[in-house]
Amino acid sequence: MSVVVELGANKGAKKGPTVDRLFTLVEDDIKAVNQRIIDKMQSPVVLIPQLAGHIIAAGGKRLRPMLTLAAARLCGYTGDRHIHLAACVEFIHTATLLHDDVVDESDLRRGQDSANAVWGNQASVLVGDFLFSRAFQLMVGDGSLKVLKILSDASAVIAEGEVLQLMTANDPQTTEEAYLEVIRSKTAVLFAAAARVGAVVADRPKVEEDALESFGVNLGITFQLIDDVLDYSAKQAELGKTIGDDFREGKVTLPVLLAWRRGSSEEREFWARTLEHQDFKDGDLDHALSLMKRHNTLTDSVERARHYAMIAKDALGVFPDSDVKSALLELVDFCVERAY
Amino acid sequence: MSVVVELGANKGAKKGPTVDRLFTLVEDDIKAVNQRIIDKMQSPVVLIPQLAGHIIAAGGKRLRPMLTLAAARLCGYTGDRHIHLAACVEFIHTATLLHDDVVDESDLRRGQDSANAVWGNQASVLVGDFLFSRAFQLMVGDGSLKVLKILSDASAVIAEGEVLQLMTANDPQTTEEAYLEVIRSKTAVLFAAAARVGAVVADRPKVEEDALESFGVNLGITFQLIDDVLDYSAKQAELGKTIGDDFREGKVTLPVLLAWRRGSSEEREFWARTLEHQDFKDGDLDHALSLMKRHNTLTDSVERARHYAMIAKDALGVFPDSDVKSALLELVDFCVERAY
Repeated sequence: MSVVVELGANKGAKKGPTVDRLFTLVEDDIKAVNQRIIDKMQSPVVLIPQLAGHIIAAGGKRLRPMLTLAAARLCGYTGDRHIHLAACVEFIHTATLLHDDVVDESDLRRGQDSANAVWGNQASVLVGDFLFSRAFQLMVGDGSLKVLKILSDASAVIAEGEVLQLMTANDPQTTEEAYLEVIRSKTAVLFAAAARVGAVVADRPKVEEDALESFGVNLGITFQLIDDVLDYSAKQAELGKTIGDDFREGKVTLPVLLAWRRGSSEEREFWARTLEHQDFKDGDLDHALSLMKRHNTLTDSVERARHYAMIAKDALGVFPDSDVKSALLELVDFCVERAY
Repeated sequence: MSVVVELGANKGAKKGPTVDRLFTLVEDDIKAVNQRIIDKMQSPVVLIPQLAGHIIAAGGKRLRPMLTLAAARLCGYTGDRHIHLAACVEFIHTATLLHDDVVDESDLRRGQDSANAVWGNQASVLVGDFLFSRAFQLMVGDGSLKVLKILSDASAVIAEGEVLQLMTANDPQTTEEAYLEVIRSKTAVLFAAAARVGAVVADRPKVEEDALESFGVNLGITFQLIDDVLDYSAKQAELGKTIGDDFREGKVTLPVLLAWRRGSSEEREFWARTLEHQDFKDGDLDHALSLMKRHNTLTDSVERARHYAMIAKDALGVFPDSDVKSALLELVDFCVERAY
């Protein structure tokens, strides 16, 4: 299990794009969102704030709520509804994470024990339901049917995407289109909704709403493509994750499905035995990594991600230059470059 | 496992209150709701209508949507929003059933294999999420923030109640208040919301909304109390369920917690061994049934239910007499008398 594919040659001390500039711009808002999240996950049923606090405090990058905040700022919004709605977005995201970990039987989440590993699947399912309901309560409190429509539509698509992923799991013959459909549904749609909501609270014209939705969906696809690459790459350990989780779970992501398409029949038998039939032997992960290296599927997956990253950046063309816009463009680059 | 407690002496050919009259009054509406449910559970992801269709087609009494329909009728409503919203109520209920069966690890639901037994826990969690999201999409389509508030508040309380139930599971010292809090949250609140929505669509004064909510919550408590009695009673087989599921799962329902409170220390040791420590021997269920019989806890649980049934009936006092009102009053009696 020691072979680690290193992507590109530009490792080391280089300082690439980061999420820091965007974070600094919306820092006060993010703090307000975090406070709102803590306030709104309270319940007299103590297991709820305990479990929700565990996963929410574990952090993550708060990318989705940050998108709502940055989009609102980009649209010149000066009120505070975006704080409230960014918290809703994070609640919906957290609910899906809790259910994902149950579905995937994951023991780790962001390098910590997952909630289901600590409190069991039952509590994770139910607290996920609570957070999801709470998100809708908060949206109802905000009172915009337009926002409610965006986020309830997104939620239904996310759930559809998760079921689709379950159905296509373990099939190395999955097409690139089917894979893209899954990541669009399960990841990109919430990025898109989070960004669009920023334009909605600012009461901006449809062209700006659409631009932010396009930005969000393409950023989301980029993000997930790179996430799937990272599962096999050297950077993974830094994220507190083990390498090859997707492989062992038989998840057919782009690096793998490309290796199958480009592989010999002997190689395809290997993928069938491991991913499809879940029959693993010592050294299988190393062999999988060597096949992905042979066919350049990790680097080519990053190239695919670059394609969506470019679309995301162009989508912001309708907005005049500003510090938030530059920071959002840098965020796109960060989402790609974090692969290295 | 052959001892079955027979409640009361009035068994046999007697014809007690039924749900039939209410059903006949809203029959066309129920058919429209069923059609709406089928239309709205469709998805290109075929597992979703398959799994959802399995649990929805399995039927059940459609009590909750029927409450919305009957309440709207009681309030003189003549439009068709109640059809739409009754379908939302059933979707929320179905989502919670799917997740409940995962949490309880149930293999049977209404005498059929449960969805998780057929398609696995993963699919049940995710399709539950889909139905829940779909319910909110439909409500957003209806466009009433007031309805959205009622049903999102109810959903959050339901999830809270489920977590509370999980936390109090296996504790025979649970108080009657804590038990009531669980059944109020996990069952009665949705009955209350379903009924209240009927008054909301009819745009009736607050006093009628409140009356229907009170009717719903007390009917819901009655219903769940009797459901918990039925788990130990002769009528259970007719419902396609086995007797003693709650006992084996260590669920502390009223018949059991009363038996613990009224029991000797030796009897309490029995409840601790079985419910709390899940250490079962042959004949334990029979012994549990004999203890409940000794302390009259099944019949007294029915008496407790009667108390809430009376409150439910009085709540309708603000409405003039009508065929729907009589049918709703009969529904309350039916919910109690089905214990026999």
